[in-house]
Amino acid sequence: MLLHRAVIPHLRQACRLKSAPSRLYIRACSTDDSLQPQCPSLAFSGDNSSTRGWKVMGTLLGLGAVLAYHDHRCRATQESPHVYTREEVRSHSSPETRIWVTLGCEVFDVTEFVDLHPGGPSKLMLAAGGPLEPFWALYAVHNQPHVREMLAQYKIGELSPEDKVPSTLKTSDPYIDDPVRHPALKVNSQRPFNAEPPPELLTENYITPNPIFFTRNHLPVPNLDPETYRLHVVGPPGGQSLCLSLDDLYKFPKHEITVTLQCAGNRRSEMTQFKEVRGLEWNIGAISTARWAGARLCDVLAKAGHQLCETEAHVCFEGLDSDPTGTAYGASIPLARAMDPEAEVLLAYEMNGQPLPRDHGFPVRVVVPGVVGARHVKWLGKVSVEPEESYSHWQRRDYKGFSPSVDWDTVDFDSAPSIQELPVQSAITEPKDGETVQSGEVTIKGYAWSGGGRAVVRVDVSLDGGLTWHVAELDGEEQRPRKAWAWRLWQLQAPVPAGRKELNIVCKAVDDSYNVQPDTVAPIWNLRGVLSNAWHRVHVHVAP
Amino acid sequence: MLLHRAVIPHLRQACRLKSAPSRLYIRACSTDDSLQPQCPSLAFSGDNSSTRGWKVMGTLLGLGAVLAYHDHRCRATQESPHVYTREEVRSHSSPETRIWVTLGCEVFDVTEFVDLHPGGPSKLMLAAGGPLEPFWALYAVHNQPHVREMLAQYKIGELSPEDKVPSTLKTSDPYIDDPVRHPALKVNSQRPFNAEPPPELLTENYITPNPIFFTRNHLPVPNLDPETYRLHVVGPPGGQSLCLSLDDLYKFPKHEITVTLQCAGNRRSEMTQFKEVRGLEWNIGAISTARWAGARLCDVLAKAGHQLCETEAHVCFEGLDSDPTGTAYGASIPLARAMDPEAEVLLAYEMNGQPLPRDHGFPVRVVVPGVVGARHVKWLGKVSVEPEESYSHWQRRDYKGFSPSVDWDTVDFDSAPSIQELPVQSAITEPKDGETVQSGEVTIKGYAWSGGGRAVVRVDVSLDGGLTWHVAELDGEEQRPRKAWAWRLWQLQAPVPAGRKELNIVCKAVDDSYNVQPDTVAPIWNLRGVLSNAWHRVHVHVAP
Repeated sequence: MLLHRAVIPHLRQACRLKSAPSRLYIRACSTDDSLQPQCPSLAFSGDNSSTRGWKVMGTLLGLGAVLAYHDHRCRATQESPHVYTREEVRSHSSPETRIWVTLGCEVFDVTEFVDLHPGGPSKLMLAAGGPLEPFWALYAVHNQPHVREMLAQYKIGELSPEDKVPSTLKTSDPYIDDPVRHPALKVNSQRPFNAEPPPELLTENYITPNPIFFTRNHLPVPNLDPETYRLHVVGPPGGQSLCLSLDDLYKFPKHEITVTLQCAGNRRSEMTQFKEVRGLEWNIGAISTARWAGARLCDVLAKAGHQLCETEAHVCFEGLDSDPTGTAYGASIPLARAMDPEAEVLLAYEMNGQPLPRDHGFPVRVVVPGVVGARHVKWLGKVSVEPEESYSHWQRRDYKGFSPSVDWDTVDFDSAPSIQELPVQSAITEPKDGETVQSGEVTIKGYAWSGGGRAVVRVDVSLDGGLTWHVAELDGEEQRPRKAWAWRLWQLQAPVPAGRKELNIVCKAVDDSYNVQPDTVAPIWNLRGVLSNAWHRVHVHVAP
Repeated sequence: MLLHRAVIPHLRQACRLKSAPSRLYIRACSTDDSLQPQCPSLAFSGDNSSTRGWKVMGTLLGLGAVLAYHDHRCRATQESPHVYTREEVRSHSSPETRIWVTLGCEVFDVTEFVDLHPGGPSKLMLAAGGPLEPFWALYAVHNQPHVREMLAQYKIGELSPEDKVPSTLKTSDPYIDDPVRHPALKVNSQRPFNAEPPPELLTENYITPNPIFFTRNHLPVPNLDPETYRLHVVGPPGGQSLCLSLDDLYKFPKHEITVTLQCAGNRRSEMTQFKEVRGLEWNIGAISTARWAGARLCDVLAKAGHQLCETEAHVCFEGLDSDPTGTAYGASIPLARAMDPEAEVLLAYEMNGQPLPRDHGFPVRVVVPGVVGARHVKWLGKVSVEPEESYSHWQRRDYKGFSPSVDWDTVDFDSAPSIQELPVQSAITEPKDGETVQSGEVTIKGYAWSGGGRAVVRVDVSLDGGLTWHVAELDGEEQRPRKAWAWRLWQLQAPVPAGRKELNIVCKAVDDSYNVQPDTVAPIWNLRGVLSNAWHRVHVHVAP
């Protein structure tokens, strides 16, 4: 038995050493965008499955390793387990002492897995020497059979009966206090909560009603008291910082603008159809429009004594949402945008005439017109001006675009700029893919938007997959030059050519820089599935 | 004979009345972008031919008309002509008196043709009652057999011997004073002069040498005396206008920036390959980069008392180049851009450390970084701030983008915004299409640029038509955030896959708004052939 214990880890180690250069292919999905691999020996592949989970492709590991694994699994179920105290587990929390964790009453030595953790070694190290439950509660992706199966490989024993896992941990759920959501929302992830309105509701209104505005949370929703809420605005060197209550913010001139927010991952599901990516399976609804009101960021920064400087600088935002280590959501935008009154960056406290809903950042969020949703930091706690971009994971290790040739083995996050302005975008919300339309005339509806305040000047619609085009009618509010922050809704009524049994409906938008959407998704595919703005295509049948 | 004279015009008229609704299809090409049809009964079609000219497709005119035309042509050559004095011709200069013109010693009644003139009725009316030569000299497209053949239809007689066309008119050539050009330039049109550097020279240098900088002239090059040159800057209402000598301009702070200029028609020849368009046949070289120095427009406007205003306004530029009626080249940009110091709009008097060459606007031109070349008005004579865009033909009836579904029958120039910022662009300069490359390794070079100060962040290159991609290495100067006015040169050294007999090389660029180039040209085709920015494709053979 002892001999076996001594041999198995070595076999396991050999297996992993071998697996590293030959690549460990894992079918996996993170429902949370923050799960980022930082391990060059991991590569993702596989099909588009909504029930994806961890699955080691043993064939790639070499026969010896597979045999060792099977041997180990068999013995693990046959032998009586070794028993450890919680104190003993706690003493194994570094690579030197090896890294142990617990789940329920089971103890695991995950030293070899740390570097393979898709969320990055640092995330797993947060649990070193203790229970996994608080972290698994935060990232619900772990609660799947395949993850448990993978973990079982590393089991080394059980907790002593006196050290059974505290019941509080078992039931602790950081999401228990999340708000109640509208049942119409299509949920992509419950924990953290991510959901979009269905296409048929998305363009019913130019202004998206608050309850169905798409929601993109990275962490549990904080429950903040508006009476005690304070926004910390760090002053310039030698200057004084501000600590603003809501009432203080209300004293700044109130500025109100209509702004469309879009998640970088909108339409990711179309990329997944080409090749798997890592991220939430957004359909076309990770975009919505609201009337936002609040103080202009430039006014608040000026009040704190900040000025535009010659050298490039960045305004960093920190949310009051945080993970179990206290790491807050964070992002930044260039100071030049923040200080430009024409850019109209807001510290918003109203959304469509109401206080911000909790899911959308109550009591204060940033609204950065024309810029990717990830920079519109919610539950805003802190604003500072820094010489560098935010060091947040979401600024530096996420929300960037890469060539289709880049995979998780070769990605260099420092080589790409963080997404700020988004490219031109459009999608068809009516009819839906697979629907049957009447012959005679078809009505096609959708939305179009572009980043950076660039107005949509035209939407072309094709019924024949892009061979011939019609110009759609643009609805919605008129756009201000250089400040076209909000989408245009559009529609087209077109005759269905006689005798056609099906239509391949396509839309593409043009903005006032005359940038256009690319024809197809494959050439813009990227490993995180962001910036999915190829022509939107809907295939429908024509009723006979 | 008299009877015949009375009958023929009626037959001719009938023929034309018939032709209007059934469309007169003409294979035509204007070597000058300013030739715009304003006649809804004209539609252009045909193939891509470098020897295109006027050719009436008689079959569309109805058999009766064709017979009448042949009858008329035969008689014209058989009969002795009627003789008119120049005085008589001059009296026929309006629709009421009918419209006569002369060419050499021949007299023509072009009343019926005025509305069919591809350059628009107004252009032809400039010659009403007088000789065509000064105008044909300006637009060399007329000097073709097919045009003369068409004109011959309208011959009604000859000038009396005493009134022979003055020899000065015969030799008058508004382009006689144009500068001598570099022989390396590939000439698309001599009059006005339009030429581009060949691809192999284009990316030899990050800064394009002045003699091979692409040249886009709309009219003859004025020959201006720097001593007497004055720039008129119209002041605000109630304010005072400025009349600036070159020395006055030199007194403003000198501002120097590297800016890439691109013609809206760059790469038009690729659009023509899909379907004919009207315009110069630019290859990939209607783009070049120089170091420009001059006074900032915002400083000059401020000196004249101008300020940013709440309502939208435009800065209108007039060149000192003009057509025979004195109509100057003109264009405008939004006041907001003109007044923004960060936009760095220049009144440039230096190009790469030298006074501007005559072809590039000596002594002063506008440089509008990030904006289409057409707004960089050369030989600048006048600057004014207006509530509306420039009423110039080139601002309102040209340099706009349309859906592929729009043709010359349906185009509504007011429906599209004038091109200002250009979309993301790239092209391959090495190897050239059709070339044979060595096996082993291939070196691919090119340029990439985007409008609006958006930096190029990546260029993807494919050797297999877009199935797989490599990331190219970006050369050239580092780009300033939001002020990436100049192109990036790029190159890629890639192994040629063994056994490949040919390569379909493709490039596509991405800018920092993550806009990308569209895959194919057909869906962005437009009747003027502007904004041609699909993936650039080069097909090469691999040496065995």
